[in-house]
Amino acid sequence: MTVRPPRNDVSLQRTLRVELGARSYPIRIGPGLLHGPLPVGDLQGRPQKLITDENVAAHYLDAALAGFRLTREDALVLPPGESLKTWASAGRVLDWLLAARLPRDGIVIALGGGVIGDLAGFCAAIYQRGIDYVQVPTTLLAQVDSSVGGKTGVNHPAGKNLVGAFHQPACVLVDTATLVTLPRRELLAGLAEVIKYGMLADSLLFEWLESNLDRLLALDNLFLTEAIERCCSIKSRIVGRDERETGSDRALLNLGHTFGHAMETHTGYASLLHGEAVAIGLCLAADLSMRQGWISPAVALRCRRLIERTGLPTDPPRGMSVADFHRHMGLDKKVKAGKLRLVLMRKLGEAVLTSEFDPALLDETLTAACSDG
Amino acid sequence: MTVRPPRNDVSLQRTLRVELGARSYPIRIGPGLLHGPLPVGDLQGRPQKLITDENVAAHYLDAALAGFRLTREDALVLPPGESLKTWASAGRVLDWLLAARLPRDGIVIALGGGVIGDLAGFCAAIYQRGIDYVQVPTTLLAQVDSSVGGKTGVNHPAGKNLVGAFHQPACVLVDTATLVTLPRRELLAGLAEVIKYGMLADSLLFEWLESNLDRLLALDNLFLTEAIERCCSIKSRIVGRDERETGSDRALLNLGHTFGHAMETHTGYASLLHGEAVAIGLCLAADLSMRQGWISPAVALRCRRLIERTGLPTDPPRGMSVADFHRHMGLDKKVKAGKLRLVLMRKLGEAVLTSEFDPALLDETLTAACSDG
Repeated sequence: MTVRPPRNDVSLQRTLRVELGARSYPIRIGPGLLHGPLPVGDLQGRPQKLITDENVAAHYLDAALAGFRLTREDALVLPPGESLKTWASAGRVLDWLLAARLPRDGIVIALGGGVIGDLAGFCAAIYQRGIDYVQVPTTLLAQVDSSVGGKTGVNHPAGKNLVGAFHQPACVLVDTATLVTLPRRELLAGLAEVIKYGMLADSLLFEWLESNLDRLLALDNLFLTEAIERCCSIKSRIVGRDERETGSDRALLNLGHTFGHAMETHTGYASLLHGEAVAIGLCLAADLSMRQGWISPAVALRCRRLIERTGLPTDPPRGMSVADFHRHMGLDKKVKAGKLRLVLMRKLGEAVLTSEFDPALLDETLTAACSDG
Repeated sequence: MTVRPPRNDVSLQRTLRVELGARSYPIRIGPGLLHGPLPVGDLQGRPQKLITDENVAAHYLDAALAGFRLTREDALVLPPGESLKTWASAGRVLDWLLAARLPRDGIVIALGGGVIGDLAGFCAAIYQRGIDYVQVPTTLLAQVDSSVGGKTGVNHPAGKNLVGAFHQPACVLVDTATLVTLPRRELLAGLAEVIKYGMLADSLLFEWLESNLDRLLALDNLFLTEAIERCCSIKSRIVGRDERETGSDRALLNLGHTFGHAMETHTGYASLLHGEAVAIGLCLAADLSMRQGWISPAVALRCRRLIERTGLPTDPPRGMSVADFHRHMGLDKKVKAGKLRLVLMRKLGEAVLTSEFDPALLDETLTAACSDG
């Protein structure tokens, strides 16, 4: 299906800035942004190459090429999927950029989800020692998370994102209208991260989500814009304080993720989407925070309820045991050495990275959640 | 031959700093530095992996491993030569670092010439989105040029250094005693860059070289330390003003290089070492600067004489014509478009990047120099 997306309507758009000194950049959010042109004065008039995948291209390549005034030869269309994020793929993208003779003042446009953004951003980071790139994320997950903050990279057989660079985009264009073609399951997976932002940093956002979840699920552009802007604003603030994850600020964005990673590892990254694993992880984090006495049972229940209402999973996959969690989180060793730190909730809208939780309560959380418990 | 290098003798060492805000780092220069340990407090006690090549390993691996308190398993010894600087090699180095489970606070030590420094530095730049590395350059060229300034990368069939990163080292340890095992021809090639610094930025260094060339050729550690310190000091100052080559300051370091590259391209990077091509390029740049009336014939002659005294070549390779220079420098197109900019001498010790030279005088320079002229 080729979608005719709405034209770029400035009245519906919001702009915010990621403040990083000389590397500051704007995030523009609203329907129709992939019609271009690039909004920032000093990006205009420079050679551009667009990188996308087949799924996104089927819907939006024509509109984007017309919008950015490019021809079909200016676009590289790659096969879709996480398996694209490899060293070998990055080499092929670089070959293509060099064959196309993109100069050092050229711009790479990453049109797609997190895989395209991470791969194209990494290639921009190392092409002729680093050139500008623009993120045009087309999944909700990429719009609220991976397109902002400059983390780029590829996977390695030894683990995810083990090769890469911190390379901030020159701007981010979040076209909310692209979400109409996103598979429902991926939309919900993105919503898990939206809920995460409310839980970790913004109780008003959380309440707003409780009130307006149905509008988001109906893909109302006004409400999508509002939700994405609030998430990006939280992420920009945290990235501004801790650009290269040298402090602990950026770790707060990992609320629910330690549990989530254990489930993704256990299931071999096959049955659960990342956002689904995060959704379950958020429930576990809220439950443990409650058992610690940091949030009330009512708040923990509200977190779980909101996730349930979206249709996201709230419990670990069937058959996954407490022992499985122990193993995949390296729990036994790490807890003993006092090294396991979790992001937990101090209250609704405030997360903390801490090793000061009671391991017995963690086991209670896992036992209550696991189907063998 | 396994060389027993002199022990680390602090009394003979000098230290200077590259000032780049949070990315500032020290350069330590003197004999015996590869005996370690790392001189900077916050680098000590962290996991380290050493990358080198077979030629350097034959002379210095044992001493370096002992000095940095590493075992043979902590070292990766690669085949020597420019052909190592590829995307595929970088992939293999990353595989090795990941198999060795070097953590994010680990340090890569690059022990070798420019190829090892560029390759290992690039891998450090993208390993887990960037970790610290230390340059321990063992060629004069790397000691005065490539180890300082953070340019890292690999070659591509489309050209040299087309994939890479600006990634500043955490420190540079220049062990002057390693030059005793450097092939004479490579030593001289490095001297070309030393003379270049005098010509472009420091007339006192140039005069000092005129007086002390014999001591350098005799590898006197005191004089080597002095020369290298003055070169690194010039390079640090320029890099501090123009870290990512976005201005024109860093281009000044390319005195003689536009001519040099044309000769390297013409000879297929086979018969001329980079420093040899630069030596000839310096003579051409001085000659054109003289014809422009910017330096006196006496100064141009002093430049040529100093280069001759080292034993470096001063004239283009036999059979290379003015037309060859035109072609490899893209001269005809670029001069017409007013786009060809050359680094030339305003006076001894002062270079300028300019397109305001007379193309007819450039042709006079080339005609006088070429064997067909």
